[in-house]
Amino acid sequence: MLIKSLNDLFIHALSDVYSAEKQLIKALPKLARAADQEDLVNAFKNHLEETQGQLERLDKLVESTPEVKIKRIKCLAMEGLIEEGQEIIDGVAAGSVRDAGLIAAAQKVEHYEIATYGTLCALAEKLGYTTAKNLLGETLEEEKETDKKLTLIAEKKVNKQAA
Amino acid sequence: MLIKSLNDLFIHALSDVYSAEKQLIKALPKLARAADQEDLVNAFKNHLEETQGQLERLDKLVESTPEVKIKRIKCLAMEGLIEEGQEIIDGVAAGSVRDAGLIAAAQKVEHYEIATYGTLCALAEKLGYTTAKNLLGETLEEEKETDKKLTLIAEKKVNKQAA
Repeated sequence: MLIKSLNDLFIHALSDVYSAEKQLIKALPKLARAADQEDLVNAFKNHLEETQGQLERLDKLVESTPEVKIKRIKCLAMEGLIEEGQEIIDGVAAGSVRDAGLIAAAQKVEHYEIATYGTLCALAEKLGYTTAKNLLGETLEEEKETDKKLTLIAEKKVNKQAA
Repeated sequence: MLIKSLNDLFIHALSDVYSAEKQLIKALPKLARAADQEDLVNAFKNHLEETQGQLERLDKLVESTPEVKIKRIKCLAMEGLIEEGQEIIDGVAAGSVRDAGLIAAAQKVEHYEIATYGTLCALAEKLGYTTAKNLLGETLEEEKETDKKLTLIAEKKVNKQAA
């Protein structure tokens, strides 16, 4: 058994999302290049910068919390989620229908992260890691905002053009 | 190019979630057997019944919407998400720490479905598929409720015991 305590579980979840963010940093430039609508291109570019900041925040968390070390694992779910985005790029010509598909794929990624950071915040609180909890909470709010922004772009622009 | 219209994209997303629900129906009994806390065992059992109902609802949607046929595809993201749950079962001995890990894995699944059904509702509305939209909306609300229920079980019972 590899995970014996809540701290072990926290480290496991944190290592998973560390891998997820690194995979996402590679994928977001592809999504930005594949998108057509200017607002969507910019949303992907902005979220790339934000994601780089979130990875740095995870590094800060590790520095500030001696009980925690990141392990090298591969987040399989993020691999599948990014594969779904690639399916859209491969299967749909550039334009508003592809944009709608890219938004759908990106919102699945955001919800994956919302669930993950939500769990991490709860565990950090339970473990008494206050700095960690605050850092994770900042990222959680950013992910929720990105999800809302994508919904707005879909509703106001992309889905109307695609229909 | 396989996806040319918003209807094609709707069919793609619907086929993806159809595969996701079928995979989940196989996985939920394993999660229920692996869980320790009674409320969590029951939550997984209830959600199995609910998920079976959601699959039937997708069949109803197809019957009610002549423009829509489900394609056989495999939802790769759900495959990865279920794999994460299996990692918890394999890596953590039965008890409250494993329960906390199972809740984390299940909430990622719920958020995957919240994002997917959210997109499907928006597309169904845009396409004018009113019956489909209502059926998808019912499932969306169930997924949100399940997510909340899991948060409550984590907060009130499991995380306290695991800490």
